[in-house]
Amino acid sequence: MKYAIGIDLGGTNIKGVVIDRDGKVYKKISIPGETDKGRKVILNNILKVGKQLMDGIEIKDIAGIGIGSPGLISPEGKVITGAANLKGWNGTDMVNYIKKFLPVKNIKAENDVTALALGEAMFGAGKNYNIVLCAAIGTGLGGGIVINKKIYRGKDGYAGEFGHITLEPDGFECTCGKRGCLEAYASSVGIKNYVSKYKNKIKKSEIFKKADKDINKITPKIVFDCAKEGDKLAMEIVEEFCYHLAWGFGILTNIFNPDVIIVAGGISLAGKFLLNHIKKHINQFVLKYYRNKVKLKLASLGAIAGAIGSASLIFQDDNK
Amino acid sequence: MKYAIGIDLGGTNIKGVVIDRDGKVYKKISIPGETDKGRKVILNNILKVGKQLMDGIEIKDIAGIGIGSPGLISPEGKVITGAANLKGWNGTDMVNYIKKFLPVKNIKAENDVTALALGEAMFGAGKNYNIVLCAAIGTGLGGGIVINKKIYRGKDGYAGEFGHITLEPDGFECTCGKRGCLEAYASSVGIKNYVSKYKNKIKKSEIFKKADKDINKITPKIVFDCAKEGDKLAMEIVEEFCYHLAWGFGILTNIFNPDVIIVAGGISLAGKFLLNHIKKHINQFVLKYYRNKVKLKLASLGAIAGAIGSASLIFQDDNK
Repeated sequence: MKYAIGIDLGGTNIKGVVIDRDGKVYKKISIPGETDKGRKVILNNILKVGKQLMDGIEIKDIAGIGIGSPGLISPEGKVITGAANLKGWNGTDMVNYIKKFLPVKNIKAENDVTALALGEAMFGAGKNYNIVLCAAIGTGLGGGIVINKKIYRGKDGYAGEFGHITLEPDGFECTCGKRGCLEAYASSVGIKNYVSKYKNKIKKSEIFKKADKDINKITPKIVFDCAKEGDKLAMEIVEEFCYHLAWGFGILTNIFNPDVIIVAGGISLAGKFLLNHIKKHINQFVLKYYRNKVKLKLASLGAIAGAIGSASLIFQDDNK
Repeated sequence: MKYAIGIDLGGTNIKGVVIDRDGKVYKKISIPGETDKGRKVILNNILKVGKQLMDGIEIKDIAGIGIGSPGLISPEGKVITGAANLKGWNGTDMVNYIKKFLPVKNIKAENDVTALALGEAMFGAGKNYNIVLCAAIGTGLGGGIVINKKIYRGKDGYAGEFGHITLEPDGFECTCGKRGCLEAYASSVGIKNYVSKYKNKIKKSEIFKKADKDINKITPKIVFDCAKEGDKLAMEIVEEFCYHLAWGFGILTNIFNPDVIIVAGGISLAGKFLLNHIKKHINQFVLKYYRNKVKLKLASLGAIAGAIGSASLIFQDDNK
């Protein structure tokens, strides 16, 4: 049983991979998720990806199938809640559905960011470390905790909500209903918050030009690109963004004493520029012992990190 | 090997207990620590307590001796740093010293708050739970993380520094050199900070009267007692104290999804009054799922919690 199949259910695409126990990728595919078409279509698309990946591999060589999905996933692989952007997805019993149609017994499902964190911890930027925290910064800010190559899930599977660490009780409103969450300062949603905060200045900045003079077209990439090129307002926004990330990562450092904090997700494509700006602020939030020693790394598994992470769910118990 | 011996090195006293695998206490003693007299005297006092506890018990019945000490303790039981109030204590190799003089092979040492957290998790307020966080609120605010009855230490043993979660980057200075740490708002040191913040008001309050009109005699107990009796300023201070605790505990809840957060240490003697004021504020800092569901408990092992915790280090591996 040398292969694991991983399927990552994203907002736009369903990605799949076949990996071995060393994390080597043997096959990868991607199809449109059609997540707006309801549960049945989504499940069929997952099956389609699964079948394509299994094609040409003997069943006896498949250790299992792992699925990563947005939302809170129960230990049995059921979608409990929180996958609002997937139509009709809440309540779906992924594992049992897939079991009915594919000849594989070992099927696991997990929250997509948690799976990604495990993948990075086992085969990516965290592979040489025992205590790995992962922050996936995209539309929101998700987190994952992996201790000795095992996911830490907490009592009900809700652990690792780094995005909802309260930093500014009187600050930006968060999509969760609270105020001042890390996510409201350091994510795509955060960028939108800065855009409205600085709406008077923004029309005079490079950011506005690059967004075709349409405030709704401003993306994190545009802001980070403009900052790299020296635009003053973009630099201010990046500082605020990274200051709050440093604050959150500082809190995590004092609590976990981790080996490494991995930054993943779309916004991590800003690369070393992002990490350097976080590092600039982090010393003020950590105990003396950690000064200039907090290890931050960029995720290393790229666009298929989620699918590799989902597959790694199957190999998680190798390290028992 | 049914007994474990626990020795807790406090600022004023060294306390010791003998317990069995159910946490039942068979013997307890307390002697002055003489921690200002240097390493040799302290070590001899520890030996004295150890010998008194062993007296009358057959060596073959002693599973081991656990020692709790302030400061950062290495996995091998050496004092690395941070025990500034114990003269000459940094660098002490507790485990190897004790081994030379007592006929017991299994000797363990751990940070005192961490040991206390394990004791509460195994035999106290956390005994029915898997994921136990413990905050010991006294002079400072120490923390301990116990997952499935095992201490979570982090990479270097520094994990669980809940007191140094940054809440107010422009707020009170902390003894650690940072600003706005939870400890600077919620501990004896925090009370001192409020006293200087409100120094003009304080002389007109009940607090001042109860402290014999000497600002240096104001203790957390006096402030909490005055608040219970309805003194306005005392109530304001208690609100601020508990608001910050709720903020910190909210952060821990979102990160760990714990079963329970246990409040220990001298200030926990304020009891339900303290917990109720924390609960009043906590909903604004946690995700919806946790609203009105965060479980806070008072430590239940009392004044010998540290010694029981130290002994529990010996039985920690029972649950493997």
